[in-house]
Parts: sequence; C-alpha cells; structure tokens
Amino acid sequence: MDYKQMMRQICMQAKEAANSLMSLTPETKNKVLLSTADILLEEKESIIEANKIDLESGRGKNLSKAMLDRLELNEKRLKEMADALKQVAQLEDPVGEIFDVRVRPNGLQIGRMRVPIGVIGIIYEARPNVTIDAAALCLKSGNAVILRGGSEAINSNNKLAEIFSSGCKENNVHPYAVQLIPIPDRQMVSEMLQMDKFIDLIIPRGGKSLIEKVVSESLIPVIKHYDGNCFVYVDESADLKMATDIVINAKTQRPGVCNAMETLLVHKSVAKEFLPHCAEELRNRGVEIRACPIAKIFAPFAKDATEEDWSTEYLDLILAVKVIENFDEAVNFINRYGSHHTDAIVTRDYERAHQFLRKIDSACVLINCSTRFSDGGEFGLGAEIGISTDKLHARGPMALKELTTAKFIVLGSGQIRT
Amino acid sequence: MDYKQMMRQICMQAKEAANSLMSLTPETKNKVLLSTADILLEEKESIIEANKIDLESGRGKNLSKAMLDRLELNEKRLKEMADALKQVAQLEDPVGEIFDVRVRPNGLQIGRMRVPIGVIGIIYEARPNVTIDAAALCLKSGNAVILRGGSEAINSNNKLAEIFSSGCKENNVHPYAVQLIPIPDRQMVSEMLQMDKFIDLIIPRGGKSLIEKVVSESLIPVIKHYDGNCFVYVDESADLKMATDIVINAKTQRPGVCNAMETLLVHKSVAKEFLPHCAEELRNRGVEIRACPIAKIFAPFAKDATEEDWSTEYLDLILAVKVIENFDEAVNFINRYGSHHTDAIVTRDYERAHQFLRKIDSACVLINCSTRFSDGGEFGLGAEIGISTDKLHARGPMALKELTTAKFIVLGSGQIRT
Repeated sequence: MDYKQMMRQICMQAKEAANSLMSLTPETKNKVLLSTADILLEEKESIIEANKIDLESGRGKNLSKAMLDRLELNEKRLKEMADALKQVAQLEDPVGEIFDVRVRPNGLQIGRMRVPIGVIGIIYEARPNVTIDAAALCLKSGNAVILRGGSEAINSNNKLAEIFSSGCKENNVHPYAVQLIPIPDRQMVSEMLQMDKFIDLIIPRGGKSLIEKVVSESLIPVIKHYDGNCFVYVDESADLKMATDIVINAKTQRPGVCNAMETLLVHKSVAKEFLPHCAEELRNRGVEIRACPIAKIFAPFAKDATEEDWSTEYLDLILAVKVIENFDEAVNFINRYGSHHTDAIVTRDYERAHQFLRKIDSACVLINCSTRFSDGGEFGLGAEIGISTDKLHARGPMALKELTTAKFIVLGSGQIRT
Repeated sequence: MDYKQMMRQICMQAKEAANSLMSLTPETKNKVLLSTADILLEEKESIIEANKIDLESGRGKNLSKAMLDRLELNEKRLKEMADALKQVAQLEDPVGEIFDVRVRPNGLQIGRMRVPIGVIGIIYEARPNVTIDAAALCLKSGNAVILRGGSEAINSNNKLAEIFSSGCKENNVHPYAVQLIPIPDRQMVSEMLQMDKFIDLIIPRGGKSLIEKVVSESLIPVIKHYDGNCFVYVDESADLKMATDIVINAKTQRPGVCNAMETLLVHKSVAKEFLPHCAEELRNRGVEIRACPIAKIFAPFAKDATEEDWSTEYLDLILAVKVIENFDEAVNFINRYGSHHTDAIVTRDYERAHQFLRKIDSACVLINCSTRFSDGGEFGLGAEIGISTDKLHARGPMALKELTTAKFIVLGSGQIRT
C-alpha cells in the first residue's frame, strides 16, 4: 500500500469514528478519559521502555539537551499526563448546547446547536505529552483526531496512542477515535494535507517554518499558533510601582513561554523616573537589556537594540526597551512589530485604556496586569490546545469550545415560504 | 509596475484603511452607506452607460442569455441596490460588543470584544450588484475590502466602486476602504492569494472550480460557499399533507437558488400513500422526477435516477426521489450524498426529530418546514454575504457578525502571576 492509500485508509477510519463520536454522552467520554489515565499508570514501565528507544536514538542523532528533555518521559511526567486526563474529564462538555434562539414572525424557532467539528489533524514536534493532551481535548469535544508527532518521539507516541485506544475500547467507544500516523516520513504529512474530503481542520503545533509549510500545502483549513512577541507599554499616567512589578513578572516569571514579555515601551515623560530603577531590578534578575538610544541614557549598562530586536521573540532573559513619544506611537509600534498575540498597557488614564483595547490588533489585550495571564487555564477556560494567533474561528487561548462548530437548527410546524 | 507590486500597493492601502475603519462610529459608517445610496441614484445614467460597454462586449463574446441578464443594470436594479444600502445602514452594528465576561478569583475581569477582521478579499463572478452588497457589509462591519469581480463586468464594477469611494470621501472616511482590482487578468487573483501579510480572509463567490482554485492557491484563510444539494426526508410518522406542502414549496417556489430542494427521501411505509399524490402535484407544476425503482412504482411517469442524481444540484425543476428503508438509512444517505448545506425532516416523532438535529452534518438542519427558509434574511440575521458550507468561523448564513472576530480583553488592577 503506498502512502496516499495508507493516509486515505486512516482518514476513512477517522471519519467513521467521527460519525459515532458525535452522539456520545458526556458520561461515556469522561469514562474513556479516566480509563486512559488508569491504563497510562498501569503501563508506565512499557511506556518508559518505548521512550528509552527514542531517547537512545535521539542521543545518536545529537539532539540538543533541551530537545532530549522535552522528549523524556518519567514517572513524574506520566503522573502529570494522567492528572491532565482527569482534569479534562472534569471540564464542562461543550457538545449539544443550544444558543441564540429566536422566534421569527412566522413562528419558526431558529437557534444554533454546538456540535463537534468532525475530524481534526494535529501536527506537532517531539513532545510526547501532546499526544495525550490533544487526544483528550479532541475526544471530549466529540472529534476524531489524527495525530502526527515528531519522528524523534515515534515509539513513545505509538505506545501512548495505543493506550488511548485501549481506553476507548474499554468503554465501547470507536477504536479509531484517536489514531497516530505510524510512519514518520514527511511525505505522510503532505498526503494528510490533501485529504480535505475527510479532515475538517489542521492544527500545527511547532515552529514558524513548520506552520508555514503546512499553510502553503494544505487544502484543509489551518488554525495557526505563531509565536508570542508580547509588549508591555508603560503610559505616562502609569502607577510606576505597579508597572515595575508587572514588567518584572512578565519578563522573568517564566521567560521561555509564548506569553512572556519581549519588548517594553516607555512613555518619554516617565522614562527618567521609571527606567533606572526598573532596569536595575531586571539586571539583578539576570535580564539582558537591549535599549534604544534614549532608553540607554537611563540604563547605561544596556546593549544597543537593533531594528531586528523589536520583532524578536527571545524566549529568554533578554528584553528590548524603547522610549516612545506618545500613545499613538506606542499603538502603531505594537501593531507593526508585535506578533498579535498578547500586549499590555499600564495606565491610570481611562481614555488611554479604552483606546488601547480598541486599537491594539492582538488576540489578548490587557490592562494593568502581567502578560503571563494569557493562558486558557488562567482565563478560566480549562485546558487549551494552543493560543491561536489567527483571527478566524479561534483567536487567543483555544479550548474545548473552539474545538466545536455550531449548526443552525430550525424548528417548524409546517411553514412554507411565500 | 508589475502585477505583484500593484497588488502589494492595493494591499498596503487596504491595511491603512482597515486601521482607521476599526474605530469609526456606527453613525459615520451609516452615513457612508446612505451617501453612497444617494450618489448611486444621482449617477444612474453614467452607471448604465458603463454597464452598456460590458453588455456590448459580453454579446461579442457570446455570453449566455442568463449571464447577460445577471450582468445587466437598469433603473429598477439600481433602485434595489440603493435600497440594499439603506437596509444595511439599519442593521445593528456588531463592532465593540463585549461578551462572555467572567471575573477570576484574582479579580481579573476577562471578556471578549467584537472587532473587525481587518482586510477582506472577495472574489466573485459577473454580478455587479455584489460590488455594492459586499462593500456595504464589509464597511458596516469595519473591514476594508478588496473586490475582484468577473472580468465581464469590469466597467460596471469600476464605476460602482468609484461611487462607493465617493460615499466614503463625502464623510471623511478613508478612500481605500473599498478598492476594486482594476485589472481583470487572473494573474492578479494569484498575486492576491499570496498576500497573507495584509489580507485576513478570502471569500470566493462563484462556481465550484473557482472556489477549488482559490483554496489550492491561497495562503490566506478561505471561507467557502459551495453549492446546496438540499434534501427533504419524509419520515414514516410525517403529516403527509404538511409533507406535500413542504416538498412543493421547497422544490418549486424558486428552483434556481441554493436552498431549493434537490432530492426527496421517503420512508418505505408511507411511500404508497404519499408519493402518487405528491408526484402528481409536482408534475402539474412542471417538475421532472428522477426516481429509484421503488419510487417509480408510485410515479410511473418518472425517469430512472442514476447514482449521479443523488449528488446533483439541479437548480432547476428537476427532483431526485428515493424510497428508503428506515431512518438511519436516510441520515447516512444525506450525510453521504448531500452538500452539508440545508436538510429537512418532516416528522411527528419527537425522537426522530431530535436524532435528525444531532446526526445530520449540515450547516442548517430543519424540522417540519421548507428548505427555502435557509437564508440570512429569513433567519432574522439581516443581509448575508453568502451561505458558508465550511465548519470553521462561519457555518450557514454568513452575516455581519461573521465578518467580525473577537479578541480577549483583560481588565486588571496590578495583578501578577505567582
């Protein structure tokens, strides 16, 4: 069987599973998640065994230390994966909700019903925990999922997908609800992206080049999760103590994640009072500052920022700092150089706050708090499959609701159109 | 200037316009729509003049009578276009709405704010009225639009787009809010579909081959409006008088549109009582019936249906009819052969109605009424830009709300993450 045929086979199985998942009760879906959590812990030794093969071969390929760390599974991590499954089981089931109901003059009742999307394809890199997390969210939202993990994790992923399927079988749920593409060849991804007759949505999780490749090849709608070049703007009216706390938190609390701050803009009229102390505090926490010429006056130890710094996501203890002339410049600068992910203002001025909300073209726009809150869990949405930097269907933290669609339902009593 | 540069120029202008449209008041946008309606009527002679050039050249190219009819503008049609503008002005402005607000334990108020999408590209065929309709809906929802109409209507479209820009200028609204690609070469469409840095959404309006071409080339998200192969299923428990009325209405009230019925499924236990009379009534109204062997017993004058008939959108007085064994077969048949646009059941059975709503995988699922209601106006949503057969972002009638997106807004008072 060639790759195209194999992919088609996987897709037809997924479609069949999707048809049956559509009308599962919340109870059954939760049982699958809890069973899978149990099996995951029972099978921990064989999972760690499979993972060792991947780690071994990763070392042979000279994978970086960071990549090997992401690839590694151990008892603690398996426990976390099982806990994540239990948490998803506790979330509210989005499927079947009826909303926006209106009654028309002719008596028709017209509303919308939330239903699964159908078949979702997820393409990700070498993090085996994504296999379980993504499968759990797709199953809970009633979708069949086709997973394509990084080739470096193929043995771990095969084992984990198999365990999820056992959780399905144990509860008489369609065994193809979760499938992993068993062949790591990239050609299989290309075949997958042509299957628009079967797959309804592709979510690529990974670096920019992976996402761009997927977008250019795919006939299927793609929801993109690009990087987070997040800004904090300290306005002239800001409470400067609050601004310092927010800047330090947004930069240093966890610098390696997409909602960490990467660039700080400071209004010129508060630069002198704000920057020397704030920059010193950042330096004390090991942050390297790259400053514009004016900012450098107040942080003489800083390096010179280049044009490239304004659009760079460091994911590290590095911060670009710029002093700006006025509010409008700040807005234009963020919309131009930011990545439309998460941006914050610190201000006491009502009109500024209001304008910032309206004018910043980003998925999450924050007033007087740390960018680190930009997260499905912190927003109270439950687990997320990613933070969408797209504008369509899902924007910002993408949780269970965004893994569903809604159809119009019309309840009549014999109406015809005249 | 080559095509790529020209397209880039148009896109940069659109982006600039989008930034300023974002924060227009509803009042200003409505004034633009009303001004444009006035100018449209004042300029009717020069519009009809421009349209004559297109008609002339269309006749030279031997366009079909139907195409020439769609292309033609006259006083009555211009009046209708002006009325459509006034109607859009009366619709509620979707921009700025704040919803789904929740307060987190740490005091953060998290909600979503409805905002324009940005720049929308619309690709359509030779119907000049789409120029005004699409521009009106995009402006009302705060989006800049780049229009690419069929080459046969280029003179009419240029004139209409110019009039819309005059309506903008008269109210100090950015003149590039509405732009028409002035060169009918298809290469310009290809360039447009690469402009994912500027254009946020592409909506192709036209035949299947146009949409497929757009999907395969585009780096920009596309919302597809495929055809409507709509089904009516007459269940064994149906009120047969009601079923006859609905079938006749769905097939004959306006057969040339996407929400007209194309295939009728009848449960075997009511075929004998229902079909002879219903088929006769259809025949009396000039409908050609293409029947399965069993249906033919009850409508002997029918032609034989082929496999192809079940998935054909006739847009004409032709109806495919099939007698089916049971409810599940009906559901599977519709999900397999239908186009996931609009499907209806006629039944008195609660459980059947409920299952039909859940299991039919279509944008609009109807109980006991005509498929002809599947329409933004009839649904009470106001004017629509099309009926999406996609599942993401917009599904079913796509009105003003679907021309917006929502960003998360977070109102804090100094919160940092611990």
